Parts: sequence; C-alpha cells; structure tokens
Amino acid sequence: MKAVVYHGPRNVSVDEVPDARIEKPTDALVRITSTNICGSDLHMYEGRTDFEEGRIFGHENVGEVVEVGDAVEKVHVGDMISAPFNVSCGHCENCEHGLTNYCMYANPDPKIAGAAYGFADMGPWPGGQAELLRVPWADFDALRLPEDARERQDDYVMLSDIFPTGYHAVEMSGLQPGETIVILGGGPVGQMAALSAITKGASKVMVVDRHPDRLRLAEEIGAMPIDDSAVNPVETVIQETNGLGADRGAECVGYQAHDPQGHENNSMTLNELVESVRFTGGIGTVGVYVPMDPGGPDDLAKQGKARFEFGNFWFKGQHMGTGQCPVKRYNRHLRSLIAENKVKPSWIVSHDLPLEQAPEAYKHFDAREDGWTKVVLHPGQAA
Amino acid sequence: MKAVVYHGPRNVSVDEVPDARIEKPTDALVRITSTNICGSDLHMYEGRTDFEEGRIFGHENVGEVVEVGDAVEKVHVGDMISAPFNVSCGHCENCEHGLTNYCMYANPDPKIAGAAYGFADMGPWPGGQAELLRVPWADFDALRLPEDARERQDDYVMLSDIFPTGYHAVEMSGLQPGETIVILGGGPVGQMAALSAITKGASKVMVVDRHPDRLRLAEEIGAMPIDDSAVNPVETVIQETNGLGADRGAECVGYQAHDPQGHENNSMTLNELVESVRFTGGIGTVGVYVPMDPGGPDDLAKQGKARFEFGNFWFKGQHMGTGQCPVKRYNRHLRSLIAENKVKPSWIVSHDLPLEQAPEAYKHFDAREDGWTKVVLHPGQAA
Amino acid sequence: MKAVVYHGPRNVSVDEVPDARIEKPTDALVRITSTNICGSDLHMYEGRTDFEEGRIFGHENVGEVVEVGDAVEKVHVGDMISAPFNVSCGHCENCEHGLTNYCMYANPDPKIAGAAYGFADMGPWPGGQAELLRVPWADFDALRLPEDARERQDDYVMLSDIFPTGYHAVEMSGLQPGETIVILGGGPVGQMAALSAITKGASKVMVVDRHPDRLRLAEEIGAMPIDDSAVNPVETVIQETNGLGADRGAECVGYQAHDPQGHENNSMTLNELVESVRFTGGIGTVGVYVPMDPGGPDDLAKQGKARFEFGNFWFKGQHMGTGQCPVKRYNRHLRSLIAENKVKPSWIVSHDLPLEQAPEAYKHFDAREDGWTKVVLHPGQAA
Amino acid sequence: MKAVVYHGPRNVSVDEVPDARIEKPTDALVRITSTNICGSDLHMYEGRTDFEEGRIFGHENVGEVVEVGDAVEKVHVGDMISAPFNVSCGHCENCEHGLTNYCMYANPDPKIAGAAYGFADMGPWPGGQAELLRVPWADFDALRLPEDARERQDDYVMLSDIFPTGYHAVEMSGLQPGETIVILGGGPVGQMAALSAITKGASKVMVVDRHPDRLRLAEEIGAMPIDDSAVNPVETVIQETNGLGADRGAECVGYQAHDPQGHENNSMTLNELVESVRFTGGIGTVGVYVPMDPGGPDDLAKQGKARFEFGNFWFKGQHMGTGQCPVKRYNRHLRSLIAENKVKPSWIVSHDLPLEQAPEAYKHFDAREDGWTKVVLHPGQAA
Repeated sequence: MKAVVYHGPRNVSVDEVPDARIEKPTDALVRITSTNICGSDLHMYEGRTDFEEGRIFGHENVGEVVEVGDAVEKVHVGDMISAPFNVSCGHCENCEHGLTNYCMYANPDPKIAGAAYGFADMGPWPGGQAELLRVPWADFDALRLPEDARERQDDYVMLSDIFPTGYHAVEMSGLQPGETIVILGGGPVGQMAALSAITKGASKVMVVDRHPDRLRLAEEIGAMPIDDSAVNPVETVIQETNGLGADRGAECVGYQAHDPQGHENNSMTLNELVESVRFTGGIGTVGVYVPMDPGGPDDLAKQGKARFEFGNFWFKGQHMGTGQCPVKRYNRHLRSLIAENKVKPSWIVSHDLPLEQAPEAYKHFDAREDGWTKVVLHPGQAA
Repeated sequence: MKAVVYHGPRNVSVDEVPDARIEKPTDALVRITSTNICGSDLHMYEGRTDFEEGRIFGHENVGEVVEVGDAVEKVHVGDMISAPFNVSCGHCENCEHGLTNYCMYANPDPKIAGAAYGFADMGPWPGGQAELLRVPWADFDALRLPEDARERQDDYVMLSDIFPTGYHAVEMSGLQPGETIVILGGGPVGQMAALSAITKGASKVMVVDRHPDRLRLAEEIGAMPIDDSAVNPVETVIQETNGLGADRGAECVGYQAHDPQGHENNSMTLNELVESVRFTGGIGTVGVYVPMDPGGPDDLAKQGKARFEFGNFWFKGQHMGTGQCPVKRYNRHLRSLIAENKVKPSWIVSHDLPLEQAPEAYKHFDAREDGWTKVVLHPGQAA
Repeated sequence: MKAVVYHGPRNVSVDEVPDARIEKPTDALVRITSTNICGSDLHMYEGRTDFEEGRIFGHENVGEVVEVGDAVEKVHVGDMISAPFNVSCGHCENCEHGLTNYCMYANPDPKIAGAAYGFADMGPWPGGQAELLRVPWADFDALRLPEDARERQDDYVMLSDIFPTGYHAVEMSGLQPGETIVILGGGPVGQMAALSAITKGASKVMVVDRHPDRLRLAEEIGAMPIDDSAVNPVETVIQETNGLGADRGAECVGYQAHDPQGHENNSMTLNELVESVRFTGGIGTVGVYVPMDPGGPDDLAKQGKARFEFGNFWFKGQHMGTGQCPVKRYNRHLRSLIAENKVKPSWIVSHDLPLEQAPEAYKHFDAREDGWTKVVLHPGQAA
Repeated sequence: MKAVVYHGPRNVSVDEVPDARIEKPTDALVRITSTNICGSDLHMYEGRTDFEEGRIFGHENVGEVVEVGDAVEKVHVGDMISAPFNVSCGHCENCEHGLTNYCMYANPDPKIAGAAYGFADMGPWPGGQAELLRVPWADFDALRLPEDARERQDDYVMLSDIFPTGYHAVEMSGLQPGETIVILGGGPVGQMAALSAITKGASKVMVVDRHPDRLRLAEEIGAMPIDDSAVNPVETVIQETNGLGADRGAECVGYQAHDPQGHENNSMTLNELVESVRFTGGIGTVGVYVPMDPGGPDDLAKQGKARFEFGNFWFKGQHMGTGQCPVKRYNRHLRSLIAENKVKPSWIVSHDLPLEQAPEAYKHFDAREDGWTKVVLHPGQAA
C-alpha cells in the first residue's frame, strides 16, 4: 500500500510499504478515505521528537471497514468509521474511567501511559496517512458514522482529533455558558476550541494569533480575533473583560511557541494565559509539551522545564488541566452536532489533496504559508 | 488592647494598641479566646513579604461575640464563633459563587482579589492575635460554634484556616475514596491534608517531611510517613503504588521549600509532585507562592517564576488547582465532624500559650524546633 | 402606590396601597419599571393555593433603585437592577451553598425553606406588580444591570425568574452539548428551557405543547415543536431519537397539567417524561407541584401525591432534580449572554401593558388565549 | 456441573446441568469459589418476577479463571477475579460513558438496557450459583483480585454487587464529608450503604430497620440504628438533625417494602425519605422497583406505580438518582480499600455454606430469620 513515510527532519515521501492487516481477533482493517495533517505532526516532521525514521504519519483518520477480526461484534465491513487518534484497549483502569488518552496497555513502554497512531513515544502503531490502517480493539476504538459520512468527510474527519481536542481544552478550562474565554493559538486546534466555546454558550470568545488567515477564520464563526503582532494580547483581553481578565483560557500552541519576533519560548503562552485569565479562572492546555526537548533553545527547555509564573498562577487561584484529549469522551456527542447540522468544522479546511501530494503539503503547512490552514489527504483520490 | 505587632524581620512584640471596634453596621466585635500562629505567618515574620510594620498578625481566630452592628441579624452577642481567615463581602461575583477566597470587594487594591486578617497584600484588616477582633460582614463571615466550643477550642480553632486549607488541597487534587495520595510537607496544613484524606476514604496516605515530630504526628492518625532526608521520596511513593505513582498529590510547603541540605528551591516540591503522581493524576497546591519575591535566592525566584517541569506535567496529563482556601465552602461540614467526634484536629497542638508569650513562640516555631508543631495563643489566659 | 392586589379566585384589581419603604438597613427600595405575569401567578389567581387576599402579586421584577438602607454598599441609587424572585438572606447554610431557592431565614415558617415576592407559602414579602418594591438584603439579592438595561427591559426582565428557571430545568437534567432533550410545556418557562438547551449546545430540542402560538415560538428559535393534541408525544420523541428516547427531559407544566381532552392529571407529564427519556437519562422538573392541593381533582391529588411510574423510572435508571430555581446561580452569566447579544429572551413577549391593565391581562393569560404568550406590565407607563 | 436452579415460587434445587463453557473469543470460564445469595434473588425466588423456570440464580460471584477465549488479553488462567453482576459489552454508548449498568448490547431485548447474571429481564445469562460461570467480555467484565483473595473471599465477594450497590446509593444521594444520611433498610445493601457513608466521612449515619440482627450490625460499624417498629423513623431522623432532616437519604429496600405491621406498600420508603430528608437534600434509590408487578397488592402497584409524595418532593427541592449500580465505576477503588484493610465488608456474613445447602439457605434467608443476615455459598466446599 502507499503511505506517508518519515525519513528524517523535513523529509517525508509517499512510499510503497507492506499492507496493514488484521493481526489480532479484536482488530479491524480500514481503507482510509480522509486523513489530516495535524499541527503535532509538524513537531515530528521538523525532527523535534524521537519519531523513528521509516514510520508512517497520520492520526486523524476516517475510512471504511474492509475486514474485521473474529472477536469484533459491533463494527461491520462497510461501516464508515472515525478512528480516535488515541489507541486504547478499553479494559485498563484508565480506559475504564474514560481516560483513553492514557491507556496503560496500548503503549508497550511500561513508564508511559497513552498511545496513538503514527506518533512519537506513543507506541509502535503505524499512522493512517496510507491506504490502509489497522485499528486495534476495533469495537472500542472505532466510532461508526451516519449515512451522510461519505459526503461530509471533511466534517467528520475532524472527530478523530482536533475537534475533540479543541473541545477538551475548553472543557478543562471549566467554561460555563455566559463566560468569556481567551484562546492562545488560532491553528486548527485553536479554531476548534473557539467553535467549541461558542457551541457551549460562551458570551465572548477571543482568539490570539498573528496570521491573517487564521484571524479571519476565527472571525467567521463569531470569535474576536486578536493579532498579537499588532497589540499586547494580555492588555487587550483585560480591556475586553472589564479589567478582570477572561474567565477561562485555552493553550493551543505548545512548546514550540514563538513570540511575534520569532523567538521560541516554551513558557510564553503559559504566562500570557496566567496574566490574561482572571483570579479563580481555569486554563486548559492541549498544545503539546514534552518532558525532554534536546532541540530546545536553552538548557531549561532541553530539560522540558518552563520559566512558569507559578507565583502569579497560585496567587490568582487558577487551575489548569493538561494533556492529550480522551477523544472517546466527546466524539459521540460531537458527531451528533455535525449530523444535526449544528456545527460545520470543515470551515477551516483549505486543501483537499490526494495522498501523493503529502510531501508538498507538509512543506507548505510547516512553513505556515498564508492560506494553508488545514490539509485533508484523500488516499485513492486521483492525484 | 494587647496585640502581636510586627516590627520588621523576626521582630514581634505584644503591644498595647487601640481597641478594635464596630465600624460598620454589618460588623461584629469578637473577644478572641484562641488564635493560632500559622506557617504563613512565618513568611511575613521573616520579612519575605511586604507586610507593613506596625500591623497585627493573626488569621486563625476563635472567640466570643461581644457587640454587633445594627444590620447584623444572625450572629448574637455571646455566640462563640470561628472567623474564616478570608475576609469576604458575601455579595460580589466571587463570593456568590463560593469563591470567598477571592472576594472582589474586601481588598481595596483593584488588581487583587482576596482579603485576610493580618496578611500581606490581603487588605488592611488587622489580625486576631489580639484581645479583640473586628469581623466585617459578620453574618456572612462568622461561623457559629456549638455548645462544646468553649471546652474544645483547640479543635474548633482549626476551622478558621488550616483544617479547611488541608481539606482544600485534597479536594483540588480530586481524591476519590479508595485512591492514594502523597502530601508534601508535614507541617500543620500537611497534617490536616492527611487527616482530610483519611476522612475522605483514601486507601493510602503518604506524608513527606524530614522532621521527626511531624512524621510521628502523621503516623499517629494512620498515614505513612516518608522521611525525605533518608530516602528518595519520589521513588518511595512509586514503590508504594505498584510503580504507577500516587493517584493524587498535595503541596503543603510553598515557595520557601528547602531541600534536605537546606537550599531553598521554589520548584522542588512542585516537580517532586509531578514525578510522584501518576499519569492523569491531580494535584492540589495550598502552600503559599508569591508573584514577586525580592528576597528569593535567584533571579527567576525573585520574579515569582519556578523552573517547573511543565513538559512532564503535560505529558502525564495531570491537572492542578491552586490558591488560598475558600474556608466557608468547608467549615460547616468540618465543624460537624468535630462536633460528632469523627475527627480531632487538635492532635497536632504542641503548645497552648498566653498571648504574651507570642514573641518566644514565633521564635521557636520559625526555627522549626523539635516539638513545636503548632502553637495556640490564648488572649486573656494568665501569662 | 398602585399595586395588583388579590381579592380571591380570579379577582385582582389595581389598588392604591401604602408605599413600600426601607424597613431594615440592608434593604433597597426599587421603583418598578417592568414586572411580568408568571404562569405560577395563575395557580394563585385561580385560588388553587392559600395565597392570602389583600396581598400583592409579582415576582419577576426590574426597576431602578431609589433609596438604600445604611448597610447597603454595592447597590446605589440610580442603578437598574433585576430582583431574583427568591428572597434570600445570603448567610444561612443554604444561601452559602448557592441554594438561595431554599433560604432558611427569609421564610418565617420554620418548617419551610425558601421565600419569594408575592408568592403563596413563600413568606410575607409583597410582590412587585406595583410602583415600588422593597428588596431585602439588597447587596445580595439585587443584580445590577448594564447600561442598555433601560432600553432592553423586556430582555432583562426575564432574568428574575423564567430565563434562569428554564435554564435550571436543563441544568438539572444533566444536558451535555450534543445531546437531545424533550421539554414538556411550551409556556414561557418551557420556551426559556428550549432557549437554554440551544444555548448549551443540544443537538435536538423538542417542545411538547398543543397551543399553536407556543409551538410557533419554539420553532422560531430552532426547536422542534410537537403537538400532543395531534400526535402521541412519547412515540414521537422515541422516533426522533433512534428509538432510544431523549437523553434529557424537562418538566415545565406542573401539577395542574391537563391532557389534550382537558382532564387535570398531576402525574401526566411526569410519566410522559419517564417514558420518553432514555435509560440512564436525566429529568429536571421546574413546573410547580404542591404538598397539599385541596382543590385537586381526586383524593391522591389533594394529598399532593402523584400516580408516578416509579417502577419504570427506577428500571430505566433515570435521575431527577426538582424545585424552584436558585436564580442567583445563573443570573450573572445569563445577563452576559443578553448583554453580548447571544440571546434575546424577549422573543416570547406578546404584550407590553401599563400596570392598570393587569386585571384584563390576568384574565386573558389565565384563559390561555391564543397570542397571549407573555405579558410584561410597566408601572408608570401611560395607560 | 452443579447449579442452583429455579423451579417456581420458593422452589430451588441444586441440579446437575451442562457445564458452562467458552462460547466466544472474548469469554472467560471461571470456577466459582464464592457466590452470595442476594436480597434481589428473593424477588425472583418468591415468584414476584418473570424469571424463567430452569434458569440458574447467582449474580454475586468470585472465582478462579480456568480458561480464556482467543481474544482475551488481560485476564489469565489462574487469576482470581470478581465478576460484576452487570454483564456489559464495553463498547456501546452507555458502557463507554461508564454506565455499564445499562449496557445496550448485552441484553437481547431491544427495549431494555442492562444485563445481569441469573436475573429476571436482564438477558439470558446463567447465574453463578454453580461450579462454573461463563464471563463474557472478560477483559472488560472481570476484576482481577490481589494475592490475598483466596484467603479473604468473604470480603472480596462483596465487590460484585452489594458493596458497590450500597456505595452507589450514597454516591447518588450526593453525600459530602461531614453531612448526615438516613438509610432505609438494614439488609446487606443497606449495611454496605452505611459502611460506604462512614468511609466517605459522613458525620452521622442512621439506619432504619426493625430486625434486631440488622440493627446490631449497623451499630457495630458506628451507625445509629433506628427501629421503626418502636419509633417513628421520620420524627427520629428529624430530631437527630436539629429539626432539619437528614442531608441525604438512601433507599435500600425496594418495591416489596412492608410496614411494621406487615402490609406491603411500594411507596412507603420513598415517602419516608422525602419526609425525613431536608429541603435541597438528595436521595439515592438502589432497592429494586419494577415497571409491572402482576403480584402486587393493588392496581397501582400492579402497574408499577407508586403513590409518591411528589408535591412534597418538589416543594423541598430534592433530587433523586435511581437504578442498578454500575459496579465497574467503583469496584477498583473499593478493592483497594479492602486490600489496604480500610474496610472489612464481610462483617455482615452470617453463613458460609456449601453450594448444596442453597435450598435451605434460600428458605431461611427469605423468611428473614434472625441471624441469617448474609449467606455465602462455596461450590466445591465439602457439604
């Protein structure tokens, strides 16, 4: 089968590799029809993780079930399914408690909880930027999609990661209807956080970024765009909230945050959130941070440490939730919102491309070129 | 009246000062019968805050109402009351939502939410290490005590701060019955966190400290003491929890944490918690941290920043709650536990002293002398 | 002053009565500018409660503060305020825990928690269908309104009762974004429940009623109207939810529910909810039920008992929350949604009338005449 | 194999039946070592349900895994396991959300969610009062027990139903540490509710029953026994709670409740709870109620309806959760409490008997004979 293979920093190609196949009786085999490039793929693409050469990218996947193992009961051949990016067993303590983001069984490293398709440190699972994908524990891991799934793939494909991830940021922040929220980062996850906050009844949603295409996308759904290359975002948020600060904040950038002048600083967005969120407010952090970052810009960053304004964070009595999203906690309900036409997350898609054009797509997306807001790859689509 | 007055670093005396009195119709005047020295008093005593000279210490107060303002309806002369250390108006947005720890009205500084008796940056309110205390918004702020209050003051006096504060740490950690918790710091607040975790049904409670008297107190109520001057506390916790780490963690030390060799390090306990708490676990931080610390040991500390293992914190998907405790959220229920003889928080009291001996008590307690675990001052007691 | 006075079943008049005035230092005196007739006024109007003759109706009030007592600090003369229908002291155990709907102090009957303006069994407080209203505990009970309050009174007047009450029904049902909900009753509270469910991100909102004007109002905001005089509402809900039943249900009718043939049956809506809500679903009941109903249609009803399908309720593992709404829990956030133009609850208002026309308005509204969906009275408006 | 087979009202025998065996790749086969008789078995034993003749009883099971299907990964031959009474697939919407009590897949009746071993209306699953039990979806459904499981079976056997069920009643009531609770019914589930409330830090736990052995058991763990054949339980609870009523209530009797004079009344305990729980209080109902009860004492009871004091329930603003317990939500944590010697639920066991003595045990237990508080059957134990 064809697949997007990593060959070292900023070097991917579409290669012919052995077909994915059923390996265990609980597996399903899926023919991928839509698979996104994610912002977190770029950390790996740039060589800022220990993602191994030769592995396949892709953790935002939709496709059709073409074969199931003997123990699979719920999922059937012919079903269109969304595969949450988290690979999860369904029966460990964390999965049982809904924490499928930290499955204790799917990652063979006994020191790490959590697994994902095509992801650094998240187990050996091949990604779905390919013609076929093996979905383990398929009855637990696959979400069946409704009848309009073939026509509305660019909406449903967001269910495997970024829509739930954006939603999770908002949920962890503790947002209640009528409250205000500031979202740092207007990339795909930040946009989905904005969409989620609006869906949950926020009275004001502010999105901080500096790329015109992203600021425009946020504005399109009714959020207030804040250009941090033009204004001080902390001051702006405080002005927009009667001098108090936003009730809630969402971090949707991660450890490779840069200031408007281009300097990388892993504590920048964290400290901006502490400063722009009110006393007693909540923060949800879904941007990726890493325990060790050998390529980081200084010694503390290399150790995975941030110069965090902890004194201010504590003094303001804020709370913070972190980590990858437990997609299964949200994907059924978000599926309903799509199916009932309450939300249309595909508004951020800028490019629908055949799988073969993945290398160029990675290049443009990594360069943050204007207008490349979100790429959906379609294996099998004529190149 | 007599009161404990601050005159600069490590310099307090019991002075004659003007009597506290009713100033507004919602005030009550209380004759203090028991008032504790708190660990957070020591930050001020040592000159590590901007607490003003001439002010009165004391935010853990019990006493008898001797006069009430015209608008006071619930509290009556003769009532024994506990005064939560948070001064709170009862009618701002935060108070209404139960966040009396961050009252938006009781602190005249418009940039700071939250007020307290005799506390740096927490408004002008005089403390209660004195013969009389003015309790503002008395119907809202005073908790009436049951009939046995006069006899069991050393239990009930814990309701104004440290018992709810320890409880709050556990609550913010998200502890469920049957889970494990590690508590960093075996001072009075850490002990109360241990008592709270046991009361809430923890299956294992581990308290990390290095002072024999404190380790002994923890053991007395059924917690497991861990001496971090003898063993590596992170490794010990992980061993005690099947290699997974504790389900929950509580920070009860604060920014002046020292390692066993005596070096101050404001990120030490935070990073130990991140390391010893499991993936998906929760942390409650009630030890005091400050936005600016001019007396801190290095530049980052002076700016109120910590070298926080944020990468690890995020990678493990942990969450953290912080800040001072909203005493009123818990004090009624904790009062019932005392009244029904389910808990006896006075087990930590090492010294019951007349107010006049406050200066010596501060000196011994600040020196962390063996056996000085908790001091209760009794104005009016024969010296 | 002029006020709407009750003189027995279906007999009200606008009488000249003694002016409301400041009686305690914590009171405010408010000149009423908008005051609604509520569906629960009709229980009293019809003589189905023990509301005393000579008392003033009106618990949905907006107005301008004209005088404050000596102890009032937050509310000032000239402020436009919304007065939650619950009278609450702010300092009893229930108020402290946010349960202002069950204040233990504002109702002089020691066996009853909860008080309200102009309401049977809810204390002696005069209502606000009058030129002046005394608001006790004004700093706690009055919600200040933003600058546009004078122009948008028909929106803000909903904050004192029906908007929060509809919201409370949805909240108690446990609705999560993406879920479905069925609302029994399309009166003003049912409409607000629908608006709330939409605001909170429901994927499908179904409103059951039989009055064309109400069904039309529900449809206007995107809810699905179900006419129970034309179809079986339980079967319709089940069909609309893939045979499972709605995730959540809201009761917005109360003990005087009638079937489409006109028979009163206090268990009808309850049992319909049990049948139309799914296994594990939640139900919020804000329609009024009474412990004793001497005018009820049969012996069980007279004793306040319902023939409740408890076996089915239990077998399906449903849960239910009940009772009057704690307005203060929600009114700040709902105020923000109005102020930020996210919702416009005045869409249900059919009549803006001077206070003098209250008697006719009661007659038409009580008769459930087509087009009389919600009446706002304006004392001081030219008759 | 030998098994306890139902042959009609009050007629069971230990018969030789075909061995349970692996039927699907996700099954495990368990050799039962301990299996309780449950109070809900008695509803079936008495013929008050449509439990089919020829079926095997037993849903509280512990045993050793003797064979596993090809797809089973976590559970191994030789493991001692507890099988939650709920049979659940692990991958339907309800299971995913932790509602394994209402699995949508394990019960072949499309109108019923929820399945159980040896239980009326709960699917075809044979019970475990037998030498062997087939455990479907074994990786999801079986809880592995620690090393001391063979020695402490009478403690661990409570994990499959009554300990979590009692805990669930308390959890649904909303009990917070320091609150009071009244538990109606001192049978095994009621005792476990009392143990759970104590473990969760209740300040006062009241258990209402009339059997001296049960009242004694409650007293042994520190609960207050209330004999409703000697005193009015509602008045007693109100006296014990300062005239307010208990904060929380738990129903642990079910639809076959009898008054002290022996009359069956399915609304008795419900109405007593409404009356003895305070305004705003919560109630958890785990006693069994049925949608249709052909053997009920009157027409309403036959229809599964109760004469419920709904008016009072609503007027007091109470809330109620109902239904069978989702055992998996609690069993890991309760296992830890047993393993760490924090609780010892076996204190209620009155009889450890070989399987062969099941018929006599049913007879004595059903007759509510003094001293027959809980029977554990041990297949394989010498008779």
